[in-house]
Amino acid sequence: MNDVILLSHGNGGLSTKKLIEDIILKHLGERGEKELYDAAVINMEGRYAFSTDSFVISPIFFNGGDIGKLAVDGTCNDLGVMGARPLYLSLSFIIEEGFKLSDFERVVKSIKEAADENNVSIVTGDTKVVEKGKGDGIFINTAGIGIITDRRDWRDRKIKEGDLVLVSGTMGDHGTSIMLQRLGIDTTEEVRSDVAPSGLLGVELLDRFSGIKFMRDPTRGGLATVLNEVAEMYSVGIEIDEERVPVKGWVKEATEVLGIEPYYIANEGKIVVIADKQEAEDILSYMHSHPLGKDAAIIGEVTKGKRVYLRTKIGTKRILDFLKKDLLPRIC
Amino acid sequence: MNDVILLSHGNGGLSTKKLIEDIILKHLGERGEKELYDAAVINMEGRYAFSTDSFVISPIFFNGGDIGKLAVDGTCNDLGVMGARPLYLSLSFIIEEGFKLSDFERVVKSIKEAADENNVSIVTGDTKVVEKGKGDGIFINTAGIGIITDRRDWRDRKIKEGDLVLVSGTMGDHGTSIMLQRLGIDTTEEVRSDVAPSGLLGVELLDRFSGIKFMRDPTRGGLATVLNEVAEMYSVGIEIDEERVPVKGWVKEATEVLGIEPYYIANEGKIVVIADKQEAEDILSYMHSHPLGKDAAIIGEVTKGKRVYLRTKIGTKRILDFLKKDLLPRIC
Repeated sequence: MNDVILLSHGNGGLSTKKLIEDIILKHLGERGEKELYDAAVINMEGRYAFSTDSFVISPIFFNGGDIGKLAVDGTCNDLGVMGARPLYLSLSFIIEEGFKLSDFERVVKSIKEAADENNVSIVTGDTKVVEKGKGDGIFINTAGIGIITDRRDWRDRKIKEGDLVLVSGTMGDHGTSIMLQRLGIDTTEEVRSDVAPSGLLGVELLDRFSGIKFMRDPTRGGLATVLNEVAEMYSVGIEIDEERVPVKGWVKEATEVLGIEPYYIANEGKIVVIADKQEAEDILSYMHSHPLGKDAAIIGEVTKGKRVYLRTKIGTKRILDFLKKDLLPRIC
Repeated sequence: MNDVILLSHGNGGLSTKKLIEDIILKHLGERGEKELYDAAVINMEGRYAFSTDSFVISPIFFNGGDIGKLAVDGTCNDLGVMGARPLYLSLSFIIEEGFKLSDFERVVKSIKEAADENNVSIVTGDTKVVEKGKGDGIFINTAGIGIITDRRDWRDRKIKEGDLVLVSGTMGDHGTSIMLQRLGIDTTEEVRSDVAPSGLLGVELLDRFSGIKFMRDPTRGGLATVLNEVAEMYSVGIEIDEERVPVKGWVKEATEVLGIEPYYIANEGKIVVIADKQEAEDILSYMHSHPLGKDAAIIGEVTKGKRVYLRTKIGTKRILDFLKKDLLPRIC
């Protein structure tokens, strides 16, 4: 009876205080605010990125990670691809009454580990509880602030014909593994999410290569969505080669059976880069030397036109449009 | 069929894009980011406050406001009481499948109005959709960044015996009105939440009065929780007078019937101030001259000891402890 979340944990009184002290501050204390003001106070000077995401993934524990790691890596990655080194995170929980305290503690521990890995401080937070049946276990929101340097700020660089498109690794691991787990298909050890702090690789790359003109993490909507957004934003065409897009064997098999394409599936530990042709090989080598980029590949190039095309193995070329089909919900 | 939120609105593809463009950017465009990067980029120099809150209030539309206004005012007020003028907000939705698009648009419009009132920019956001029965209409998270000046930063000022305690208005309006509406009790026009950008009053006061040593908005847990936190944080006692705490007639009646005390009930448009005795009267006058402080009062003082006491009308004195009883959940 005492090992689950109660509505009183959200009432702002003693129970809330106890939950914060016994679980949240116990684990995050080192990475968190000591004084319990309603806001963190931070000195800042420079250019910063600010981003937020709410995480509603189901199941909350999955092969390769959990909602806690996802909530930290997800927001830090959004900062990293903008050239921002993550500094501060806010952390907000919406918990369903009856959620196991042991599961909550497991999530908080995972948040701590991911915060350590990203070297980010959790400086402010909030906890709400909703009645049983009005939520689904736990939802987490994080908002993050990261610092950008001029060198890492790619926003004003112009994408042009001939620029190359790179990915830092295999496409579709996260979404496919979640789908298989949700469908209850007995999976092997290799079937796992790629959730990882890929923004850290992004920041390292941007520090080293001024020829990087665009970077994003292909999460919901996958690679195809990112490329379509680039095509629209910069009024360019993009062509990628089916053969060069790295896809793991189990992802290939599963997506063929499910009738979906890995280009539309969410990744949580990968980045897409568009770079000057001259630097692309060096960027690729650097990725290969990095633990988060060992399967990196140059997959295509920027062209004339305004659409995204896939050149297939059999030599045809077809439009790779924005995602229209409904994939499984709640993959992040 | 087309006037409700579908799971596809959360898939990151075309439907998500359409929802963002047709409703969110349509209303927030003026106050929001034009370019759809995953993070906003901001130049900052100085001392900033950073705060977050998730809002799960039920019902989402209530007398005096709605979840949208609450989500903006709530986070801006948390910044304001720290001496921070709100500058940037992130905005993240978790929407239940089947939620009416017209209600979503109503919430977004309300967010826009509240953002205008607080003069804050909504610079980054996220939208997630969960299956019917896995959420409850709409939950909103906001995280905010505000700028602090030295003059407004009260954190290092020492609270001492004899300092006075002020509130900017009547206590218990928000929570009591939500309870009455939830209980389905037919209420009159005066039964309404006090949700308001009271942080703006806070910032004005801190700009003018260096004798302010502490400021907080008494939301969940109410006045009693804030005072107990002060007593604990600063190792002081506090005594307040029942007769001097402003409470509206309908709040008094309802709380008596419900057997709860207005000191524990959430407010969403009020601030609690602890100030040097010398300046307290001037602060009170300034509050009285402000639309958000017309019912302000000096309600008690800092004493020896480490507890919070209530001096009752009949001349007794009793401990006003941390909230232990369970009040109605989801009042914010």
